[in-house]
Amino acid sequence: MAAIERDLNPSPRLLLGPGPSMVPPRVLRAMATPLVGHLDPDFIAILTDLQDLLRRVFQTGNRLTLAVSGSGTAAMEAALVNLLEPGDPVLSCVHGFFGDRLAEIARRLGADVARLEVPWGQAFDVEAISKSLQDHPTRIVTLVHAETSTGVRQPEIEAVAAACHRHGALLVLDCVTSLGGLPVEVDAWDVDIAYGAAQKCLSAPPGLSPITVSPRAEEKIRARRSPVPSLYLDLLLLDKYWNDPPVYHHTASMSLAYALREALRLVNEEGLQARFERHERNAERLWRGVEALDLPPMVPLPLRLPTLTTVTLPSGLDDAGLRRRLLREFNIEIGGGFGQLAGKVWRIGLMGFSSRPENVLTLLGALDEILPQA
Amino acid sequence: MAAIERDLNPSPRLLLGPGPSMVPPRVLRAMATPLVGHLDPDFIAILTDLQDLLRRVFQTGNRLTLAVSGSGTAAMEAALVNLLEPGDPVLSCVHGFFGDRLAEIARRLGADVARLEVPWGQAFDVEAISKSLQDHPTRIVTLVHAETSTGVRQPEIEAVAAACHRHGALLVLDCVTSLGGLPVEVDAWDVDIAYGAAQKCLSAPPGLSPITVSPRAEEKIRARRSPVPSLYLDLLLLDKYWNDPPVYHHTASMSLAYALREALRLVNEEGLQARFERHERNAERLWRGVEALDLPPMVPLPLRLPTLTTVTLPSGLDDAGLRRRLLREFNIEIGGGFGQLAGKVWRIGLMGFSSRPENVLTLLGALDEILPQA
Repeated sequence: MAAIERDLNPSPRLLLGPGPSMVPPRVLRAMATPLVGHLDPDFIAILTDLQDLLRRVFQTGNRLTLAVSGSGTAAMEAALVNLLEPGDPVLSCVHGFFGDRLAEIARRLGADVARLEVPWGQAFDVEAISKSLQDHPTRIVTLVHAETSTGVRQPEIEAVAAACHRHGALLVLDCVTSLGGLPVEVDAWDVDIAYGAAQKCLSAPPGLSPITVSPRAEEKIRARRSPVPSLYLDLLLLDKYWNDPPVYHHTASMSLAYALREALRLVNEEGLQARFERHERNAERLWRGVEALDLPPMVPLPLRLPTLTTVTLPSGLDDAGLRRRLLREFNIEIGGGFGQLAGKVWRIGLMGFSSRPENVLTLLGALDEILPQA
Repeated sequence: MAAIERDLNPSPRLLLGPGPSMVPPRVLRAMATPLVGHLDPDFIAILTDLQDLLRRVFQTGNRLTLAVSGSGTAAMEAALVNLLEPGDPVLSCVHGFFGDRLAEIARRLGADVARLEVPWGQAFDVEAISKSLQDHPTRIVTLVHAETSTGVRQPEIEAVAAACHRHGALLVLDCVTSLGGLPVEVDAWDVDIAYGAAQKCLSAPPGLSPITVSPRAEEKIRARRSPVPSLYLDLLLLDKYWNDPPVYHHTASMSLAYALREALRLVNEEGLQARFERHERNAERLWRGVEALDLPPMVPLPLRLPTLTTVTLPSGLDDAGLRRRLLREFNIEIGGGFGQLAGKVWRIGLMGFSSRPENVLTLLGALDEILPQA
């Protein structure tokens, strides 16, 4: 039988990798809802609900808060393609794959990119960022709050934002692996653009990615001298589509909007504080368990993300083979190392609906069974 | 009760506008399937199935055939952002809103854009395109096969492509409102890049947009001197992600891929020829009906799309008010006129699963009831 003749029947995976996370049944069910048009008053009401719910999870009053129709990388690109003009000086703080991707996107857009780097697995010191801003005047600083490639949580965002503003720069913060799993306080921290993704700690399917823009950043976008090179990701056009009466821009995905609304309602019902504590609690259980299995977390406790843990592999361990066994024998997905960390770590995600004690037990049990005996 | 506390319950619309179309139950159900990871072998197998199914509907053997993670506008932007370099001469054939959008995207990308225009509602003469190519050497020609804003079907694509190639230009063809509803013969016509959207004649939810690239166009992309300004829409990176073993690029939407696969299987089960004939048959029924209601089709028969009909409104008709009544009293969505045609036409789509005789009857019955008596 040809592959396409087979009914859809993907394996029942337990998703404990760097994303996507498990999607709750209520969210899956929402997607089976018949469509309405992209300019239908019923759909515009859903977009309004989404804006309201997204402001809560970003902890912001930013008017310009919506979701772009694409993955987290689309939101990343939306942040930069709207803010940057060719030749603009950018400071990219790189301490992992996604910090590097921000620098690469800025480079492709013709910005004058300076990189500030610390080794993968570490975080930035505010003083170092401050000094760099002093030495090289810049307009935009890019920084990753929760590095999906290393499991590092960048602390002191508020101080970083203050340093940026003191030097006349705006702060773009990648919150893909933090939004909905640990505090992202856009207003309290005074971040200029923050973005996330649906499929991590929000536990919606991928395809819509939240973004919020401060009045200061919006003003910079409105003052551009050149057009935004991407019409698809033009935030001012998206803004006009997302507000009543809507001005057509593109056909947003009803099915994904239904799902994201339901996922954000679940976040709202649980409450942010309770949700963050759940992520902490389940991560601590995981950390105790992997320590006992001689797979110690790579990142020191104060910088360790509760949503994504990198565990250090003993040298000589059959990384790919063991992950394949986890997938084939137990239907468990975890992530391998990425870039510099390939073969050296595993990445275990406990995000959103995946962050449950029973999932930690299942994973630890499976690891105990497949890991070579010491 | 706050809006976000209400359970999701959009109105049960009959979608007869310019898209999205109705989504068949099998496709809706596929979206409720739990997720697998974006690098899971089960997901890569689905991407392989999608490539196979997309080649059939595009009628092409093009190796580089996939779907970008975004709406039709994202696919449009993907075509141009990969092909164009700053300063490249482009000939944009504009006979409606989407032809104009292609010109606008090329302009934002820094191309040197020449516009060839005919009035909205007409199609291009091959001779006119040929002459323009002779007078102004160009590298890329953009053309819309099925103009969603006017209901015009551009004929003689094969001759247009031949003229482009004779003058050393590549042809980018927008097939958003034709793909799956009328013949799109990428190889027979020798089109260089063609793209569509999931939510029109394929009747999947929006959010993934098919695109196919000829070896000639692929060669041009590989020979670029400057990087593709969009990392998100970089087709050569997408190509590496869509093929086994996948190289991570972004997190594609499993839910949308499940849906598109199911929608394309339905296309395949029906057969392209039968599907095109169904679209013709139901459109003819609609045309007879609207003539009888004194809402004659705007576009002459040889250029009229079977998938989207623009009907001419008598002057003085309360366009917005009547469409609002159709929506509120009968849950029927049709489209208003767009741009130059605002207030002058309605746009009635019979695409994919929406193209059924019972839907035509329902619409004609409702129109008969709400239209003012002559």
